[in-house]
Amino acid sequence: MTVTVTADLAITLDGCLAGPDVSLDNPGGDGAEPLFDWIHTLASWRERQGMTGGVENRDSELIREWFDATGAVVMGRTMYDTGEEFWGDNPPFRTPVFVLTHRPRPALVKEGGTTFTFVTDGIHSALARAKAAAGDRNVDIAGGASTVRQYLGAGLIDELQLHVVPALLGDGLRLFEGPRPGRNALEQVRVVETPLATHLKYRFLR
Amino acid sequence: MTVTVTADLAITLDGCLAGPDVSLDNPGGDGAEPLFDWIHTLASWRERQGMTGGVENRDSELIREWFDATGAVVMGRTMYDTGEEFWGDNPPFRTPVFVLTHRPRPALVKEGGTTFTFVTDGIHSALARAKAAAGDRNVDIAGGASTVRQYLGAGLIDELQLHVVPALLGDGLRLFEGPRPGRNALEQVRVVETPLATHLKYRFLR
Repeated sequence: MTVTVTADLAITLDGCLAGPDVSLDNPGGDGAEPLFDWIHTLASWRERQGMTGGVENRDSELIREWFDATGAVVMGRTMYDTGEEFWGDNPPFRTPVFVLTHRPRPALVKEGGTTFTFVTDGIHSALARAKAAAGDRNVDIAGGASTVRQYLGAGLIDELQLHVVPALLGDGLRLFEGPRPGRNALEQVRVVETPLATHLKYRFLR
Repeated sequence: MTVTVTADLAITLDGCLAGPDVSLDNPGGDGAEPLFDWIHTLASWRERQGMTGGVENRDSELIREWFDATGAVVMGRTMYDTGEEFWGDNPPFRTPVFVLTHRPRPALVKEGGTTFTFVTDGIHSALARAKAAAGDRNVDIAGGASTVRQYLGAGLIDELQLHVVPALLGDGLRLFEGPRPGRNALEQVRVVETPLATHLKYRFLR
């Protein structure tokens, strides 16, 4: 069975995934409110964080669709470190999560179906393990920027959904920097325009 | 009267306006076919170049709308130099064009309404002259990348239309590099999805 590998990212019109000066205390970087604030208002996102309320709109549906389609997650160590405390005992993933790291560490089993497995032998290994765990659903490369760039550079991402927010960050952390992409040609799958963002979905051509 | 300043650009999903190794002989840079080939098939574009044929579709309408809305053009010296021969005696602009340069040169009057005026005292002066010449239409900052970046950096662009083509160029000439943008917040004006490109139109908020 072929597992689809996705990346689903909020991004500014100028291609930033975060503002400048990202750190453990400032995971979105400076000035990143336009990137993320809209997500935090959505019912589907809040539900996954164990929160109530939020708006049920087309944006919320798209985020729910992505959550539901994901059977395993790969993330970088920095994303794990910055999220760990916020996610708490019942993280929003509810699937196996494979964390790229150089430091071996025992797996963590959390509530609600989330497990964190720390992978020290590289991006191909982490992806293979995630594919084996994903069942008939997708593997999502969750971030951060350098992790997504590595997978793009290796030509390992099949579908890319960008939630483009109407803002420029200028000197933030850009998605499309670094290694040349392993695949260059895309086909447009879907465009959804809402008052909050323009949701662009692409599939890489082989 | 307030003149609207526009920039209307074909761009890859990874934010490139041209491929690498741009030169007089290679104005689009390497691998730039996905950026420009679709435009060359459009009836509205061909008509402006004095060519016949081409397809009448939504893309062609959007390009015609932009041509028709433009009353004066500002461009950089490199764009002028790379276009001069191709444009010939009857250039596609049919309006006054102000060329940013460091070298004084007499104005050129071409057929069909196009004049080229060479401006040596900077981007604000060129824009002021273009606004005075635009009548009740827009001033378009035509390119190249560094010229558009300078106007974005100075916060002088009001509307930005990006024709996003489904391709990555990796190491091409990026729009959103260089100076921090002078304005950061945009509002979405319109999204048009066609089989050829996704046309995103934004207005800067003051």
